[in-house]
Amino acid sequence: MIILNLDRNDKMPLFKQMVFQLKNLMESNTLKPGFRMPSTRSLAEKHGLNRSTVYKAYEELWALGYIESRPGSYSIVRKRKEMVSSNRRSTRSRIPWESKSSEPGRSLHRDFKSMRKKYPSNFSDLINLASLELDPRLFPVDTFRRCINSVMLELGSKILTYGDCFGYHPLREYIAERLKIHGISVSPAEILITNGSQNAIELVLKLLTVPGSPVAIESPTYSYVPPLLNFFQTAITGIPMTPEGMDLDALLSSLESKSSKPALVYSMPNFHNPTGITTAQSHREKLLRLCESFQVPLIEDAFEEEMKYFGKVPLPIKSMDRSNTVIYLGTFSKVLFPGIRIGWIAADTESIERLAAIKKFSDLSSNSLIQAALYEFCKPGHFNFHVKKMHRVFRKRMHTAIHTLRDLLGNFDSLSWTEPTGGYLLWLHLKHTGMNEENLMHLFHQSGVALVPGSAFFDDLDSSSQLHNGSNASDSHHFRISISSQDENQIREGIIRLANALKKVYKK
Amino acid sequence: MIILNLDRNDKMPLFKQMVFQLKNLMESNTLKPGFRMPSTRSLAEKHGLNRSTVYKAYEELWALGYIESRPGSYSIVRKRKEMVSSNRRSTRSRIPWESKSSEPGRSLHRDFKSMRKKYPSNFSDLINLASLELDPRLFPVDTFRRCINSVMLELGSKILTYGDCFGYHPLREYIAERLKIHGISVSPAEILITNGSQNAIELVLKLLTVPGSPVAIESPTYSYVPPLLNFFQTAITGIPMTPEGMDLDALLSSLESKSSKPALVYSMPNFHNPTGITTAQSHREKLLRLCESFQVPLIEDAFEEEMKYFGKVPLPIKSMDRSNTVIYLGTFSKVLFPGIRIGWIAADTESIERLAAIKKFSDLSSNSLIQAALYEFCKPGHFNFHVKKMHRVFRKRMHTAIHTLRDLLGNFDSLSWTEPTGGYLLWLHLKHTGMNEENLMHLFHQSGVALVPGSAFFDDLDSSSQLHNGSNASDSHHFRISISSQDENQIREGIIRLANALKKVYKK
Repeated sequence: MIILNLDRNDKMPLFKQMVFQLKNLMESNTLKPGFRMPSTRSLAEKHGLNRSTVYKAYEELWALGYIESRPGSYSIVRKRKEMVSSNRRSTRSRIPWESKSSEPGRSLHRDFKSMRKKYPSNFSDLINLASLELDPRLFPVDTFRRCINSVMLELGSKILTYGDCFGYHPLREYIAERLKIHGISVSPAEILITNGSQNAIELVLKLLTVPGSPVAIESPTYSYVPPLLNFFQTAITGIPMTPEGMDLDALLSSLESKSSKPALVYSMPNFHNPTGITTAQSHREKLLRLCESFQVPLIEDAFEEEMKYFGKVPLPIKSMDRSNTVIYLGTFSKVLFPGIRIGWIAADTESIERLAAIKKFSDLSSNSLIQAALYEFCKPGHFNFHVKKMHRVFRKRMHTAIHTLRDLLGNFDSLSWTEPTGGYLLWLHLKHTGMNEENLMHLFHQSGVALVPGSAFFDDLDSSSQLHNGSNASDSHHFRISISSQDENQIREGIIRLANALKKVYKK
Repeated sequence: MIILNLDRNDKMPLFKQMVFQLKNLMESNTLKPGFRMPSTRSLAEKHGLNRSTVYKAYEELWALGYIESRPGSYSIVRKRKEMVSSNRRSTRSRIPWESKSSEPGRSLHRDFKSMRKKYPSNFSDLINLASLELDPRLFPVDTFRRCINSVMLELGSKILTYGDCFGYHPLREYIAERLKIHGISVSPAEILITNGSQNAIELVLKLLTVPGSPVAIESPTYSYVPPLLNFFQTAITGIPMTPEGMDLDALLSSLESKSSKPALVYSMPNFHNPTGITTAQSHREKLLRLCESFQVPLIEDAFEEEMKYFGKVPLPIKSMDRSNTVIYLGTFSKVLFPGIRIGWIAADTESIERLAAIKKFSDLSSNSLIQAALYEFCKPGHFNFHVKKMHRVFRKRMHTAIHTLRDLLGNFDSLSWTEPTGGYLLWLHLKHTGMNEENLMHLFHQSGVALVPGSAFFDDLDSSSQLHNGSNASDSHHFRISISSQDENQIREGIIRLANALKKVYKK
């Protein structure tokens, strides 16, 4: 029987206290390998805790390798390996890594550390409206398991050899076919499979940029893009977002500039991250025309193309691309699940072959087994069925988010938000808060809800306050609300908590 | 019933003629989707062909998506999607990709094309002593399938979420524990999981080099390293191989040089690719001391560490590394199977964290499901068992290779080869051939055996003839023999064919 000494007044969250004490019991061999842990329910009841707190603690212990799950949904203490005594080695490395690192490597390491600080991966008892990860409760795990089984039985060892660096051909065919639904006509030869979208973005940067190349991105943008651009030592030109899409006048002047004509333009026309804005049709046409006439490749990141659950979103820019100017990026991460790391690039065969060459020397090929299993999943219609289910689920969830916001915060003059036509993101704009971003964050956390602060999405911090209405008061802030990982009740509760916090801000 | 019109006198190999004619039958709908293809045996018998020729043709059709396998090991014609009519698009891209590509991107594309030309992936009826791919007949497919099943049942959806960019913790623990067998003491925090060794090499280059950085590599070396080094615009210093390992005098002078002191030294101390040479123990100690005293990171590529089946190979350099100078690269590709793309880096925590930061922004994380399945495979001893089996199998295969070579070619004065103490590779040296490499290759192919020409492994073609004995006659050549993909009979037959060819060369 386990007795824990938990202190509700301690600064350390309860689940962390649990993790700490349980770890000690295991490391001291009080809880021996093979010991069957009590159920989350019984441990919660005994200590008068919320069951989710115990669950969090168990998840952490699992991640750290202290316990393992067994069928029948109980957990046992794992046999852990003895740590190697390090007295054979000096504690410090003989190599001064900081000075041996390339400058881009050093800067990426700094970004990495500051991001890990800014986004704690564990929100403890907060309602998580920060993460853009998909709700794992919606994953079709069992169907996918059967698909892996079936390809391994059918294809045997050949699916465990090195794959084609372009990707598994039947999957490329499926994707080419699927893209027709979105108005895109490409052949399988125009598809390159990648290790998710992030890998796709990197491949494109490797192909099109050298140190010093100007690159035009939306500002704000997906937070993992600026550090990568800095790693490749490109010169970032941030093009402000407008409610219609990126500011095309600003883009035009950068295209016309001799010194900063971009090597590529990177855009997320659907449910833009972080603002949720969908670029309007006429705006898409103009954007494409601009890139065509200046012969600048347009990178269309369509990470949520499949999530058009309200049904009124324009077709991809790629669908209008008669001149092969658009390099289109797709992914399964934001609609199926991310752990398989499969995305793709759709572009003309010549650029696809050049990108494949770079991929070949970076990692030889993507995982062939998983690609074949994914094809097995998609082919008989499971993917299509899953997308339809996701549409039903998120149509409801987004309705809940929008209506709860309207009900609770509709009459706050200093407050506005985007209402997206699909996807997972809303973008909150708070004016006249009289507080800085960090204090607002702290207040939200105290109220039990986590959002991502707007500054995370701007390469240049100064510009973060200039979005919308030209307001640049330092007490004007943005926050991203993501509904991707939470169910309706959680979304409603999260927004109630947010509203409680905002009532304090605006003293209502 | 299928009637093919095959011409043995045609330049096009028989299997290609089959592929071509079967494709036409399918595209013209003569063979309709769902049609059950005759077995390879019956089709071979009817046309008086070798069964392996039919098998090759079927494999090609499978890869192109024309047929699919069914349980019970027969194949049916697949329903293929109509190709998209491209008349909507201009055939040429508006973007001049050649001039838009970065110079490194262009050069990698050239390497990619010339490699694809140099190594046709399909050797038709040749005995393949060229490929370093592992024999798929040895893959423990069914056990691995059960492991994937079991992790998906146990861990459910959480194993399909984004993984830790450092890798799946239990797998890192297992690898740290496994490395103890090889004398290496590292903690799990000193392990980073990568998408195979190629990805590991790339991460290290990204961390430690900038354009212009000198890098010391063995000459000859693994053929995928120089193109990657050129992509990162490093300055390659090729250090000649001696029978003991890389030439340390040459390394010393490059370490002492102000202008070309390397940012890193890259070495394969076991069963070196392509020469099969294993660096001697005293040589390893000196190499480590040199790198330590010049504070230059030593990259130890241990791609075949597990394949010490003759049992007399020194421990890894990393096992002596008290100063954290060595970055050690391991992989499952050359002992288990490559299609899962899992390798790792073992180094001190500081460099591991810096490498993880780069990995995070390159592809967020490796495939978490496959990592968990691999752990599930390793944990109860399947990996250990498999390695033992591989030892038994390849001990025999390498004996066969060495004894057949000695029997058939032992009395050729102008001919020598390395006899490795493990791994898969032998390195053949032909003097006084009176022929160029291309003609020798052609002769080998005519005799029915494929090897890789030595020039593929030299960054600088001129140096390829200078290895061993200082001979630099242009009729002196090297060829790599790989036994990794062939069984004993195939190895014996391949060497018999090679001997027949060499009898012609040396007019015996």
